[in-house]
Amino acid sequence: MNNISIIILAAGLGTRMKSTTPKVMFKLSGVSMIRHVLKQAYEITNDVHVVLYHQKELIQEHILSEFKDTQIHIQDLANFPGTAGALKGIKFKGEKVLITCGDMPLVSAQELKSLCDKDADITMSSFVCKDPFGYGRVIEKDSKVTGIVEQKDASEEERKINRVNAGCYCFKREVLEEILPLINNQNSQKEYYLTDAIKIANQKNLSCVAVDVCEQNFMGINDKFQLSIAENIMQDNIKKEWMKFGINMRLPQTIFVDARAVFKGECVVEENVSILGECLIEESIIKSSSVIEESIIKSSDIGPLAHIRPKSKISGTHIGNFVEVKKGVLNGVKAGHLSYLGDCEIDNGTNIGCGTITCNYDGKAKHKTVIGKNVFIGSDSQLVAPVNIGDDVLIAAGSTVTSDVPSGALAISRGKQINKEGFFYKFFGKKDA
Amino acid sequence: MNNISIIILAAGLGTRMKSTTPKVMFKLSGVSMIRHVLKQAYEITNDVHVVLYHQKELIQEHILSEFKDTQIHIQDLANFPGTAGALKGIKFKGEKVLITCGDMPLVSAQELKSLCDKDADITMSSFVCKDPFGYGRVIEKDSKVTGIVEQKDASEEERKINRVNAGCYCFKREVLEEILPLINNQNSQKEYYLTDAIKIANQKNLSCVAVDVCEQNFMGINDKFQLSIAENIMQDNIKKEWMKFGINMRLPQTIFVDARAVFKGECVVEENVSILGECLIEESIIKSSSVIEESIIKSSDIGPLAHIRPKSKISGTHIGNFVEVKKGVLNGVKAGHLSYLGDCEIDNGTNIGCGTITCNYDGKAKHKTVIGKNVFIGSDSQLVAPVNIGDDVLIAAGSTVTSDVPSGALAISRGKQINKEGFFYKFFGKKDA
Amino acid sequence: MNNISIIILAAGLGTRMKSTTPKVMFKLSGVSMIRHVLKQAYEITNDVHVVLYHQKELIQEHILSEFKDTQIHIQDLANFPGTAGALKGIKFKGEKVLITCGDMPLVSAQELKSLCDKDADITMSSFVCKDPFGYGRVIEKDSKVTGIVEQKDASEEERKINRVNAGCYCFKREVLEEILPLINNQNSQKEYYLTDAIKIANQKNLSCVAVDVCEQNFMGINDKFQLSIAENIMQDNIKKEWMKFGINMRLPQTIFVDARAVFKGECVVEENVSILGECLIEESIIKSSSVIEESIIKSSDIGPLAHIRPKSKISGTHIGNFVEVKKGVLNGVKAGHLSYLGDCEIDNGTNIGCGTITCNYDGKAKHKTVIGKNVFIGSDSQLVAPVNIGDDVLIAAGSTVTSDVPSGALAISRGKQINKEGFFYKFFGKKDA
Repeated sequence: MNNISIIILAAGLGTRMKSTTPKVMFKLSGVSMIRHVLKQAYEITNDVHVVLYHQKELIQEHILSEFKDTQIHIQDLANFPGTAGALKGIKFKGEKVLITCGDMPLVSAQELKSLCDKDADITMSSFVCKDPFGYGRVIEKDSKVTGIVEQKDASEEERKINRVNAGCYCFKREVLEEILPLINNQNSQKEYYLTDAIKIANQKNLSCVAVDVCEQNFMGINDKFQLSIAENIMQDNIKKEWMKFGINMRLPQTIFVDARAVFKGECVVEENVSILGECLIEESIIKSSSVIEESIIKSSDIGPLAHIRPKSKISGTHIGNFVEVKKGVLNGVKAGHLSYLGDCEIDNGTNIGCGTITCNYDGKAKHKTVIGKNVFIGSDSQLVAPVNIGDDVLIAAGSTVTSDVPSGALAISRGKQINKEGFFYKFFGKKDA
Repeated sequence: MNNISIIILAAGLGTRMKSTTPKVMFKLSGVSMIRHVLKQAYEITNDVHVVLYHQKELIQEHILSEFKDTQIHIQDLANFPGTAGALKGIKFKGEKVLITCGDMPLVSAQELKSLCDKDADITMSSFVCKDPFGYGRVIEKDSKVTGIVEQKDASEEERKINRVNAGCYCFKREVLEEILPLINNQNSQKEYYLTDAIKIANQKNLSCVAVDVCEQNFMGINDKFQLSIAENIMQDNIKKEWMKFGINMRLPQTIFVDARAVFKGECVVEENVSILGECLIEESIIKSSSVIEESIIKSSDIGPLAHIRPKSKISGTHIGNFVEVKKGVLNGVKAGHLSYLGDCEIDNGTNIGCGTITCNYDGKAKHKTVIGKNVFIGSDSQLVAPVNIGDDVLIAAGSTVTSDVPSGALAISRGKQINKEGFFYKFFGKKDA
Repeated sequence: MNNISIIILAAGLGTRMKSTTPKVMFKLSGVSMIRHVLKQAYEITNDVHVVLYHQKELIQEHILSEFKDTQIHIQDLANFPGTAGALKGIKFKGEKVLITCGDMPLVSAQELKSLCDKDADITMSSFVCKDPFGYGRVIEKDSKVTGIVEQKDASEEERKINRVNAGCYCFKREVLEEILPLINNQNSQKEYYLTDAIKIANQKNLSCVAVDVCEQNFMGINDKFQLSIAENIMQDNIKKEWMKFGINMRLPQTIFVDARAVFKGECVVEENVSILGECLIEESIIKSSSVIEESIIKSSDIGPLAHIRPKSKISGTHIGNFVEVKKGVLNGVKAGHLSYLGDCEIDNGTNIGCGTITCNYDGKAKHKTVIGKNVFIGSDSQLVAPVNIGDDVLIAAGSTVTSDVPSGALAISRGKQINKEGFFYKFFGKKDA
């Protein structure tokens, strides 16, 4: 569909977000709104434009770092405010121009395409809603749209109309080029409104039709409450899709799954789990209240109450409760209890005792811990990196390991146990029992 | 609005709660039902009365400890049971008397006020519901209420009425004083019912009107299932308000926010987080599955899977997974992994290694740990309180620190590491690899 | 009701589950679908039959290990496919035969019984739904069912019928025996359909009636999305029942409660908690984000963020954050912070310091730790099992306890603390401050 140009309106201030972050950079399911919109746009065409104004440098950099070919335009907000003002002076290649918004991240490529399929000069999106109050009503005659009337301008009769403007449009390019200069700013806000195009098109006997779309997907996000509603809709979609694919999710309403996460094979995700960032989870079980970030988990069981931090690669491994792994490459390992395994490689058959800590930071730099095969790390051991533990090694419980341990060795660093009899009664000032 | 007196009915037994705790002392969003009702009442007037009977001492103490001026009355349940019986012998100052219930904690001050705005002799609350079965029906004639008919007494025709009694009333004081003595207990339960006042008022040609209120907010709480429904409603309100205010909440249905918690600036609260008690959270991020209790968190990031216990003050600090802070004053600290920081002060630039424990209890009393600036606490260190660590201190991994460490020093207490070669094969009865 | 035979159809492949696990062995609220169905069936009769085919050995073993008397039949799928084919050659004892499905785990015994109460020759289950598309429509005349018409075969008029087939049936036994041989496979799928029985019954002037049941409970589970919906329905039922019983659950939508869990007395379950397997929880509080598995908890408070693993018995005990108990018998104990207590017995009055680890595994076998009364285990102690700690014992912080400690003694194993002055500046290459 390369005869289509898409333009995404993202110049607005987003005041109601009450944030220093630009509205379209807020994230849904781990990905910014504007990138969601761009992803759908690029499924339709390669000629994608974005109009920016507020915090333009920040948003531009964010867009171009992933979608390099996007054409960025800066709205002349002083002279041409409004949705029609945003389009001033932009040249499009496509035969049709699809106009969407940066704060409508739930709109799918398929829904956008449905606006391009009609033969009309202008196709607008609409939906029928129970309570149309506040929306622009779609005025129709003989299945053609003759105008959009805003709430405040609507007559008693028009207010009863419940087909409303959903905010996206598809224009034939020459129609847009013809009409755009005719839109004026003679209204209370002194803005150039794209909705005026419908009226002008009718005066010119151009055809304009409305295509009904999903109300929910066309919601705009203006504050953080709406953000949370949109997030739940997107999350429901993502999780439903993975469940249909074969992933078993328990109480899915309590689970967060990043839009970039990928599952393979049979997996189970229990309640209250967070899957964040670009994860690959394959043939694995993620138990209750665990958090997985940007890691690869294969044929493993994780949690409950575990935390896998970014850049970990975990395979054939058991990770238990209160275990943190960070940049850890674990292959065939058991780490069942309260441990921190950071910047490490641990090989097959190795058992990590409870309370094991890789001391990866010495106050100056991060160092690496390498542990071989079939190693038994006793409980409460600290491995002061950089350190190498060979294969077939025993580390005695409570040891601080500061230098390498050769294969086959026992490492121990421990004060001898002394029992001082009767000390309890002395300490607590009680007599012997 | 000081010409209004409010009386809160809270004498009931609450059998269906199946608890030794009085019903009105059950908490919603961290605050007891009765205190929610009192808070709304005191937004309207200073003349607030509560009628008690069951567990009266306990409830009275609970009320007066926060709302000292509340006038407590004990119902003469033996002689005057019922909602009208509860009002016997109470003198009100206000020109109007507003009657509400201790188990209706969702009713807002604004909704109560709406009952006082009418010029009628009696204003009752009502709502229109789809299925009125079980409710008292509001009988109306020419926009005036002529009676309330209970389900069992209602005729075929009356049962079709779907405007029902919501349970709160506003009387002109002299009207209440006139009617109350006329209410009798000639009914199957031998109780004095306030609903009878409507009938009597009509006989006296007094005016009675109904004001429609929000059904949801006027739900009474009689068992723990209803408690959970009311909790979800209140939580939704609390979280929606904070989101509109500018707080970013991910999957809000999984987040608990105490009614007393306060947010400032931009904050993020991720899924499965609990914010308990009087917290102040400012410009901070609370990550997944963390629990924050009665603490002050500023410009910090907490979690995931962290626990901040009461009386902590945390500023400019990173708290990571499996870290517990209790009565800790942390300013500019990094404590990223598995630690317990209790009864401590930790100053700017200090790094707390994984597995650090402040041993604040010696079996007899709690003691304090004070840590200076730019300290590096090595992993798995125990700081046996009372103990002072100066500025610019290094604690070697695995150390038990029992005495003060002067600024600039390294503290170490560690057995030397010994590697016993070949021990692994001996221990496991295997030959050398 | 022992004049009833029940047959459960469970021969299907369950392709859409996309799993190597048989569909009817997927769990809802901790119990497999087929066992849920069997449990309801055995509330009605002792003559219970199951028809299997795919993975029959696995399912048969799973069924018989709990419901020993169940009669297993293997469908001759090659010659007699379809729901009627499943019944071929099975002899029933009951006067009535109730037919239900292994993938309909929400159907209650009471609902099944309601099908047996009618005097008709055949009673089928039905429900009225808003959108009947895809369902078999129930064709009725004079309150009798005359046929079931599938979506694809339905006329324009029949498609408007919104009473649909819910999938369970009760036949008089002799009627089933008479009709079953008359059902043929002359249809596009070449299967023997039980729905054909209705038509045949009508030809024979036998009476057939429909009983309306709860649509939600009669949902079939065909993929993991439907599994999650059914799970939420069952969870809502389980939690509502416990709340009505007197258990206080905060944000119940975030709580998972196994169908086999039992509560006694007053208990509180906070948000994001998982109760897994056969637990008994009595007069206890389970705080946020804790996971309890197959354990007995009495008069204790657990969590937040704690994990109690199977076979633990905890009484009069405080378990705090990041504490794991496994096969632990704790009676009157305080274990407030980051600890692993596995394979242990701990007696009354004992305080477990933060970071305590029972080193229960030596690389070869698991061993036990026994701790007496009034013991004070200092922080970061490792108890290397097998080991016995007497009563009134003090363990110094940071000790590795490898041998028994007699009552009244202090055990200590610790390097002496050395402070090396000025080391900090040397290490970090800075001058003295």
